Parts: sequence; C-alpha cells; structure tokens
Amino acid sequence: MMKVQVQSGPGLLCVGVAKPKPRRLRLNAVFTTQTTAGNDSNSMAASPSPSPSPKWAQKTITLPPLRRGCHLITPKITKEIGEDLSQFNCGLAHLFLQHTSASLTINENYDSDVRDDTETFLNKIVPEGYSAPWKHTLEGPDDMPAHIKSSMFGCALTIPITNGKLNMGTWQGIWLCEHRDSPTARKVVVTLNGI
Amino acid sequence: MMKVQVQSGPGLLCVGVAKPKPRRLRLNAVFTTQTTAGNDSNSMAASPSPSPSPKWAQKTITLPPLRRGCHLITPKITKEIGEDLSQFNCGLAHLFLQHTSASLTINENYDSDVRDDTETFLNKIVPEGYSAPWKHTLEGPDDMPAHIKSSMFGCALTIPITNGKLNMGTWQGIWLCEHRDSPTARKVVVTLNGI
Amino acid sequence: MMKVQVQSGPGLLCVGVAKPKPRRLRLNAVFTTQTTAGNDSNSMAASPSPSPSPKWAQKTITLPPLRRGCHLITPKITKEIGEDLSQFNCGLAHLFLQHTSASLTINENYDSDVRDDTETFLNKIVPEGYSAPWKHTLEGPDDMPAHIKSSMFGCALTIPITNGKLNMGTWQGIWLCEHRDSPTARKVVVTLNGI
Repeated sequence: MMKVQVQSGPGLLCVGVAKPKPRRLRLNAVFTTQTTAGNDSNSMAASPSPSPSPKWAQKTITLPPLRRGCHLITPKITKEIGEDLSQFNCGLAHLFLQHTSASLTINENYDSDVRDDTETFLNKIVPEGYSAPWKHTLEGPDDMPAHIKSSMFGCALTIPITNGKLNMGTWQGIWLCEHRDSPTARKVVVTLNGI
Repeated sequence: MMKVQVQSGPGLLCVGVAKPKPRRLRLNAVFTTQTTAGNDSNSMAASPSPSPSPKWAQKTITLPPLRRGCHLITPKITKEIGEDLSQFNCGLAHLFLQHTSASLTINENYDSDVRDDTETFLNKIVPEGYSAPWKHTLEGPDDMPAHIKSSMFGCALTIPITNGKLNMGTWQGIWLCEHRDSPTARKVVVTLNGI
Repeated sequence: MMKVQVQSGPGLLCVGVAKPKPRRLRLNAVFTTQTTAGNDSNSMAASPSPSPSPKWAQKTITLPPLRRGCHLITPKITKEIGEDLSQFNCGLAHLFLQHTSASLTINENYDSDVRDDTETFLNKIVPEGYSAPWKHTLEGPDDMPAHIKSSMFGCALTIPITNGKLNMGTWQGIWLCEHRDSPTARKVVVTLNGI
C-alpha cells in the first residue's frame, strides 16, 4: 500500500497530483525524505487545500563567451531562473546546451582547482594536434577534440526542484565546459516543469 | 495526421492527456510499441474514461556506504519507490545523486564481472597517486579522480515508466559507482512524474 | 518579481500552466528567449484563452541493425515522432535506449568524419582484444568494451520541445553509437511530455 503523508512530517519534501476534477483533492503520493520502505507509520491523508496545477516554463539563456576550460555557472543560472524556480514546489529543471563543442556537467562548486584538473584530464585523454588521428580537422586542431569532450560529459542536465530551489547537494555546482580555443557565446534552453 | 489508438491494440504502451476540462475526454496521442510510421491502420478514437491526472512525487533515498567500485542498486531503488511507481501508467523517473565523487549509470544487471571491469577501466583511464597531474589533492589521492569519474558517468538518470514499472531493457540495471576509498552514505533524490 | 509575457514579444518561446480550475486563466511563467534578468519591461499579463492541458505520449521505436560505429538517427526519430511532437507547444522529449552495449548521444549532424573520429576515439580509449584486462569475455572481445562505452556516452537523452519541434542547436543531431561488431536491432522508448 502506498505511503502518504501530507505536509506534516519533518522529513517531508513535497509532492502532489494535479486533478482535472477540482472536487477530488486527495494527494496521491507524498514521499518523505527518509528511507521509508517498510515504515508503516505513514498513513493516507486527505488535503483540504486545492490541488496544485502543473506548470511549464521555458527560456533560452545566452552565456557570455568563456575561455577554454571548466566554469562554474550556478550563480548565472540561478540569477536567470531563480524567480521562476520559486514558483515550483516540486519539479524538474532541464538545461540543454545547443552546441556540440562544449558541455554541461555537475561537479564541485568550491575549489577552482577541481575545474582546472578536469580540463587537464580532458586534454590528456583526447589527443589534439599533429599526432591526433582525426579526419575532421577543417575547423582547427581543437575542433574534433571538442566534439568528443562534448559527448563525454554531455550537453544536458536535469536537476530536481524542491521548495522553489534546485535541489543539488552541498558541494554540487553547474559547470559549463568550453572545449574550443576561441570563446563564443553559448545558448542554454532551460525548461522548468512541476507543481 | 496523428495516429491514435486507445488501449485496444496489443502493441499499445500507454499515454494520454490530462484535461483541465473534464468534459473533453479525447486522448491526444497514443503510440504503439511498434514502429508505426506509415502505418495508417491506426484510427482516431475517443476514450470514455475520465482523463488521467498528472502526478508528481519526490523523495530522498539514503544509500548505505558501499566500497569503491560499481554496485547494482536496482533492487534497493525498486524497493524504495516500487509502490509509488505502480501509481503511474506512463511517465518518467528521475534519479539525482547529490554528490560529486560518485556516479549513477545504467549498465548490465547480471554478471558482476562487468561491474568489476568497469571499475578497472575507470582506474586505468584516470591517473591516481604520485604520478597524477592534479592540483586538487588536499582530500587524498582518490578525490580528484573521483570528481572526474563523476562527470564521466554523470550523477543523474531519467528512466521511462510504463505500466507502473521502470521500463528498462532486459539486461539493464541501475548502478551506483562509488569513486572514493572511504565509503560514505549517498543520497539520491528520486522524482516521479506521469499519469 | 516574476517576469511574465504572454505570446506577444518576438523573443517569446512558450510556456504556461495547466489549471485544474478552468476559471483561473493566468499564465504563471512565460520566459523570453533573451537574457532578461534585470529587464523590468516585461509586465504581468492575463491570458483570455483556455489553459493548455499537459499531455504524455510514449512509444517504443525499433531501429534497424547498424554496423559498429556512430550513426546520425535524427531523421529516423523525427519521422517516428514528428506528428506527435507537433502537438506540443512546450515540453521535453526523452529517448531511452534499452541496451547496455550501445549508446545515445547528441553531436555534430553534418560532417560524417566527426562520427568516424568519435568511433576512433572510443576504440583508442577502451582496450579490446588479448591485451585488454577484462574478466567479462564470454560474449566476445567487443562485449566488455561495448558496456564501458555505453556508460561513457549514456543510454538516454532529454531534449526540449519548442513550438512542436525538437529544440536542438543548428549543428546538433541525435546519434546512435553501436558498440558491438554484430549489428542487432535496437529499441528506443520515446516519452513526450508537455503542453
């Protein structure tokens, strides 16, 4: 039987159901933040409040040109979408980089050495220059390595939204990794979905 | 023209539309499990049943400390969210690891040698110890390699939900890859969304 | 304060809210395509039109056997889901490959050399054959490398939907990377969600 707890427990995160029929107000599924498998103390509960309504929001953010390497962009992203995030109790934020020679990843948000070391790793693992075996060289020696690095780290992130904020861990941050030598502006399509 | 088939074909997976107006009950898009492009035998159909309502659910699962290496955690995850998954006919399950020195990936669920070999690969590809070029070494020789491995495999997964279950392939399983030497508990934010 | 603009600005992408109560028609969040932080010219607006309704659609596509290497499958995917995509103003498309020895990634859609070079890279970085350190060899020398490559690139993609189309960058395409020597048909579960 499903465990349901409606905004009463200290461990409660969020959740609910958007009902097309306003009269049926019971929340279908509310999880606690603790491991609750086998915990039968959570009982079904009815919510007297109106059902939340699912929302969608989407915008394209333009990031300014950044030098080759890994960059922490959490402040920039939260500045762009923070007000809108605050409208979501529970949901998902999707970030999509519209390029094939840069990447998005989540990693350490504190020591910039981690970003430098990651760039060192990427350059070490993907050959570049005269000894590299690439056929695709028309756009410069850094171009084919950039494509490979983009697929290694990926161009998209999905991050949970909880209580109006990105629910990342304490040390997690959003990185843009620029893999080209010549910095260019980069576009990120942000899509928010939730209740 | 859109192909629509309402819960009648053997190949039907699921799908529907949550209508804010209860009177309009037509499903907008129902796909079959087979490749149907060019197949005109599917005709529009109206559903007599009430529209499904979109649901959101979110919880944080704490995984116990696991030794460095790759671990199959599908049983643990399905134990935690199985009852709630069963409420979803069609949707997506999102798993988000709140850490920067471990990763989530989907890979083989049967032979544990695959997990051992993957750990072997990760250790081979990311230098560790005195010969490694890392600047970030304060937290031990395994720390910077752990950050790199975390970005290589990523910290998040999105898996389709079909008929109340994670719709993975026969041989697919969810892995937690622990990249640190000292095991610590790891938190995963699970977000379910669907109808 | 949240910036809201309802289908009037040239930079407008999309977005809205599915309301369970038909009477409340205000859109909660509409973003522009430009960087708008600090731009106070966007004002709140009410929409006279009915609220959009959230839709879900899901189907399994079978891709024909493809030789080992990277393949551009955007045309195949859009042929399969294009009609259904056109029903979504704003949303997300999720592609999930149900296999552990192939992968999905987004990369360059023009020069096939990029796909060849990426295959060259994968073969260079993951040892194969007699010198490889793998324990899992029962299914052939290409099997364990295939599993590793699958986790490196991943088996899933999430792509924004905007105005009825996949909102990828000009040069982005969807790739299926086949990592086994013997081609087999591959299944992809596609899930669409949006308004």
